[in-house]
Amino acid sequence: MITPNPANDIVHDGKLYDTFTEPPKLMAQERAQLDFDPRDITYFLDGSKEETELLESLMLMYERDPLFNNQNEYDESFETLRERSVKRIFQLSKSIAMDPEPMSFRKIGFLGILDMGTYARLGVHYALFCNSIRGQGTPDQLMYWLDQGAMVIKGFYGCFAMTEMGHGSNLSRLETIATFDKETDEFIINTPHVGATKWWIGGAAHTATHTLAFARLQVDGKDYGVKSFVVPLRNLDDHSLRPGIATGDIGKKMGRDAVDNGWIQFTNVRVPRNYMLMKHTKVLRDGTVKQPPLAQLTYGSLITGRVQMTTDSHNVSKKFLTIALRYATIRRQFSSTPGEPETRLIDYLYHQRRLLPLMAYSYAMKLAGDHVRELFFASQEKAESLKEDDKAGVESYVQDIKELFSVSAGLKAATTWACADIIDKARQACGGHGYSAYNGFGQAFQDWVVQCTWEGDNTVLTLSAGRALIQSALVYRKEGKLGNATKYLSRSKELANAKRNGRSLEDPKLLVEAWEAVSAGAINAATDAYEELSKQGVSVDECFEQVSQERFQAARIHTRRALIEAFYSRIATADEKVKPHLIPLANLFALWSIEEDSALFLAEGYFEPEDIIEVTSLVNKYCGIVRKNVIGYTDAFNLSDYFINAAIGRYDGDVYKNYFEKVKQQYPPEGGKPHYYEDVMKPFLHRERIPDVPMEPEDIQ
Amino acid sequence: MITPNPANDIVHDGKLYDTFTEPPKLMAQERAQLDFDPRDITYFLDGSKEETELLESLMLMYERDPLFNNQNEYDESFETLRERSVKRIFQLSKSIAMDPEPMSFRKIGFLGILDMGTYARLGVHYALFCNSIRGQGTPDQLMYWLDQGAMVIKGFYGCFAMTEMGHGSNLSRLETIATFDKETDEFIINTPHVGATKWWIGGAAHTATHTLAFARLQVDGKDYGVKSFVVPLRNLDDHSLRPGIATGDIGKKMGRDAVDNGWIQFTNVRVPRNYMLMKHTKVLRDGTVKQPPLAQLTYGSLITGRVQMTTDSHNVSKKFLTIALRYATIRRQFSSTPGEPETRLIDYLYHQRRLLPLMAYSYAMKLAGDHVRELFFASQEKAESLKEDDKAGVESYVQDIKELFSVSAGLKAATTWACADIIDKARQACGGHGYSAYNGFGQAFQDWVVQCTWEGDNTVLTLSAGRALIQSALVYRKEGKLGNATKYLSRSKELANAKRNGRSLEDPKLLVEAWEAVSAGAINAATDAYEELSKQGVSVDECFEQVSQERFQAARIHTRRALIEAFYSRIATADEKVKPHLIPLANLFALWSIEEDSALFLAEGYFEPEDIIEVTSLVNKYCGIVRKNVIGYTDAFNLSDYFINAAIGRYDGDVYKNYFEKVKQQYPPEGGKPHYYEDVMKPFLHRERIPDVPMEPEDIQ
Repeated sequence: MITPNPANDIVHDGKLYDTFTEPPKLMAQERAQLDFDPRDITYFLDGSKEETELLESLMLMYERDPLFNNQNEYDESFETLRERSVKRIFQLSKSIAMDPEPMSFRKIGFLGILDMGTYARLGVHYALFCNSIRGQGTPDQLMYWLDQGAMVIKGFYGCFAMTEMGHGSNLSRLETIATFDKETDEFIINTPHVGATKWWIGGAAHTATHTLAFARLQVDGKDYGVKSFVVPLRNLDDHSLRPGIATGDIGKKMGRDAVDNGWIQFTNVRVPRNYMLMKHTKVLRDGTVKQPPLAQLTYGSLITGRVQMTTDSHNVSKKFLTIALRYATIRRQFSSTPGEPETRLIDYLYHQRRLLPLMAYSYAMKLAGDHVRELFFASQEKAESLKEDDKAGVESYVQDIKELFSVSAGLKAATTWACADIIDKARQACGGHGYSAYNGFGQAFQDWVVQCTWEGDNTVLTLSAGRALIQSALVYRKEGKLGNATKYLSRSKELANAKRNGRSLEDPKLLVEAWEAVSAGAINAATDAYEELSKQGVSVDECFEQVSQERFQAARIHTRRALIEAFYSRIATADEKVKPHLIPLANLFALWSIEEDSALFLAEGYFEPEDIIEVTSLVNKYCGIVRKNVIGYTDAFNLSDYFINAAIGRYDGDVYKNYFEKVKQQYPPEGGKPHYYEDVMKPFLHRERIPDVPMEPEDIQ
Repeated sequence: MITPNPANDIVHDGKLYDTFTEPPKLMAQERAQLDFDPRDITYFLDGSKEETELLESLMLMYERDPLFNNQNEYDESFETLRERSVKRIFQLSKSIAMDPEPMSFRKIGFLGILDMGTYARLGVHYALFCNSIRGQGTPDQLMYWLDQGAMVIKGFYGCFAMTEMGHGSNLSRLETIATFDKETDEFIINTPHVGATKWWIGGAAHTATHTLAFARLQVDGKDYGVKSFVVPLRNLDDHSLRPGIATGDIGKKMGRDAVDNGWIQFTNVRVPRNYMLMKHTKVLRDGTVKQPPLAQLTYGSLITGRVQMTTDSHNVSKKFLTIALRYATIRRQFSSTPGEPETRLIDYLYHQRRLLPLMAYSYAMKLAGDHVRELFFASQEKAESLKEDDKAGVESYVQDIKELFSVSAGLKAATTWACADIIDKARQACGGHGYSAYNGFGQAFQDWVVQCTWEGDNTVLTLSAGRALIQSALVYRKEGKLGNATKYLSRSKELANAKRNGRSLEDPKLLVEAWEAVSAGAINAATDAYEELSKQGVSVDECFEQVSQERFQAARIHTRRALIEAFYSRIATADEKVKPHLIPLANLFALWSIEEDSALFLAEGYFEPEDIIEVTSLVNKYCGIVRKNVIGYTDAFNLSDYFINAAIGRYDGDVYKNYFEKVKQQYPPEGGKPHYYEDVMKPFLHRERIPDVPMEPEDIQ
């Protein structure tokens, strides 16, 4: 027991308050009053009881493995993070190579909660390098690199040299050059100047033996654009750099220090011709370049990462919502009745408003993420069975993948931003204790936020999704055709005139319709503005540029609508035990989203100002409804204390005890004299006083 | 020269692109095209040429002092930060003790940009400890503690033990106890249980010899509420803890690791009676407690820190806006015309929208911060000359200080949040390079965001400012009296009916009026809701609780209005050289603020949906106007490269060169083999393959 004072149970203002015993009792009371078994909601979120049990076994695998001990997580040094990360990757790679794919996929997913740096570092090899070989290499090339040990990390570690110092988003203007040398049947890879230095390359600083370099293919002085080439970086015997390879460490980052991001410069580096991945474009022995008949078939590979990031956003946001909501259930602050215990944070309306709509958002992320993944897998299956001469099939696939491209771009941007916002808002909701490293928020924010930048900067992605929406609307206006994700545009006229008309604001059908109305309105407004400019003879690019604000908004609103729609659609499939407890969450999310964006609904004329006032009071109402079961909703996220790894967020709710013990574990009290006392403090604190009486002018007359 | 390849100047797509020479040329061109001399705007922001020159001399003082070398800023270890911070504080304390106050104030202010951790650690002693002695001690007590070395840090270092583990915002419920022992004429200080452990106490872990402990005064079994007591923590001879003092390190935090935050527990610690600060409440020798006649006179001290935080928000946000806008001026990405250089980020409308309104916001912070500081100093002067029997004078002071309390609370919350948002948005606007530690964003965000929590959690402060606004409106409705900051409420009726009425949206008068209209509308709506509940017999606290959302909004909008008002008021005093270049900034800020909050204006009926569309196009227009001089506006912030300390944000604009050199300086390339290669990597990469042929069932029949 840690109390230095025997008066542990004090009666103060008539109230017995004991930090050690009250919080866990409160938490137990919360669990006792739940209207549902959180486990049923877990099954709903995971898809089935069996899936939940499988996931739990994978979580246990991490929790029990000494290499994944995370007790010291928030005090690790830069050097330790780098080294530990490699150990963890090697450990995981043993089982990944043996697992069937869906299993390894699930297993790796947990790493995204547990250790984001290692998740990224491992992703560089498996997701970026290996998947690119799969997606862009010929079957022979794939077999070759697997034989070299790529899949099992044996004598081989891959990295992915795409980004350059001067080019990130605009891949088509990368400047690294691969010149075909007909004499020797090789490519010569060169970094022409410093701006073309490969930059941010995870794995390049320490680990990678090979890289997949993106470079401009040049044959006989002609530029064929950017293709990918496997380039050996290090000698396999002693890990020294190969001739012509210069690399260095990018050093300290905002987060994810477990990844050895590096830079690479190539100087006359020669690789055999067949090190270029040739599933699509081919270079023959004589220098003939064969372009692929179906360039659009390569789009799919850009989407994989983004699809996963919506699920990652759910995984990470649910962790921090659990922490902040458990803490809110325990923490007392201010009281309206003298002599009574102070009110718990969770019982303040405004505190509910700070967190509960975000919790509902995290649910929406999961369901929308599942939905887009299903669409993606369906389209990939279609692609694999496609014959090149099946024109209609190819066209339909291209249509699907274009739409997926913009749906996944919009979702990636919206949910990674929302997750960053949730981590930060959840931290603030925990007051000062949110700022302690031991509650995890700081590290997570630093690690997380790069998700808003990589695999497409969120703003650029949203603008590009907006461009696609305008293009869809233009096609619809001309040809009457619409893809699946925008099919509500066919009801544009009806939606433009739709109003509340006395219907209940708690009716999911109305809420979905309201979002369709403002989303169609935003897309049509952006398209009108585009057409207006276009009629004046403004170029396509300049039209899009001038309607930037409108297309950003269109994509943002369309995506919010998609999240709301996915939420209600999945609820429709839920069993009756959980359905009544999911609808309030979805309603809260939809109503709060309206409140946040009420200008849309007012401008569109869908709602009147008094409707918005009602929306606000309904948000209050649903906060109250959801509050009662808040511990159930967060328990349903089903993260063990090991994954939570936050003193104030543990299952038992024993906030202060856990927190104090954690701090003392990491920094055992040792008398309070710092290591620099003798050298730095003592000489100063104990200095002789130099008399600071100023020398008077008369003295020096 | 760092290029490994002689082909430095390459011609590509007909364009000569050279990372080493192009960026600084572009930056020089930007400066050549400015419509004003940035120096004139610097004088405007600082107040005068003389002030600018004084500030520059102070900046140089830091830049030249080897103890303030910040080359290694982003790679320092936890231990180094702690030690370096003490060295810096001791160094500064030498000059601070000699400086006249306004000088030391300015000097310390820069530390808030340069080293936020040390700024806080020094603030704990000078601002919290010393100022409390000044504000709450009798003149004799002040002299006594100055004689003990408090001011010059000689044999003395103070800290401020207010927050407890279980209580932060609600100070009146702190649980540490100071019992008066009549026998010995002492107080006995006790931490009754773990939840009452003093927590987050900067200086407690390593440095402080004394603390100012907030504890409940108890005399003869009666509780007189929370008062402050000087309590010695460590023995002066060897820095060991005094009997009854337990303290430990709080350990790692999200940021500000330079501060040695600690926890303290008191067990029967005795201090002489006159160690209680007795300017207000007094305890006499016989245990008589004399309560102060003018409790409200103590409010002022709570405001000082908040006032400074609006200025700090400006100081920090301007740094990161400078970095992101300089980078945006250089960085090229995508092009609409093949063969032409790619477009610079700053020339994209959406990129302008991401940053330029925020730059205008940073200007508004400075001017609003100056304004509230003036009000504060004026009220302090009034307080000092007040006689206790001057009833009218006291009443007027209390009125002023109440209003200042809510104005400064609203501004503190709005600007510290905005600054956090600016750091993060500026980072994202720099793409991947924003994530490098060497561009400063990550560290700054981690260090900064505690500003949103300490000295009043922003949400709690905003709610409390909203409560004050409702109270003001209630007083006005009853008695017709209004303070200065809310005087526009007297025009509530007129404002409720005000509309655009065909006036220009570029007219500052209209923009100010529009904000007054929605602000008055929000305050009145919240007050109406409050009165409605009150009439139903709901208790005061419960009324406020139920209108949480409304009062939060009222305070938020009232504060935005105050920022806009302060912006235009100060411009009115500017000289004609700069005025025409400040008005577009203020208009951009006011219009963008309308766009962000357009629901208010629609619901209020001040604007119609088509006006909002016009607002959007005006935001676009003002972005374009401000863009031309963007380098002038950021140069006017007048931070040297030393203060900027970001490779991509330096004055010369030589982005890529500076950045690459910085990375190579911090991590010199050394062959790319990590320290853990032999132990960790080699055994795994070079392992013998264990045959993974499964054992067939028939084998074990």
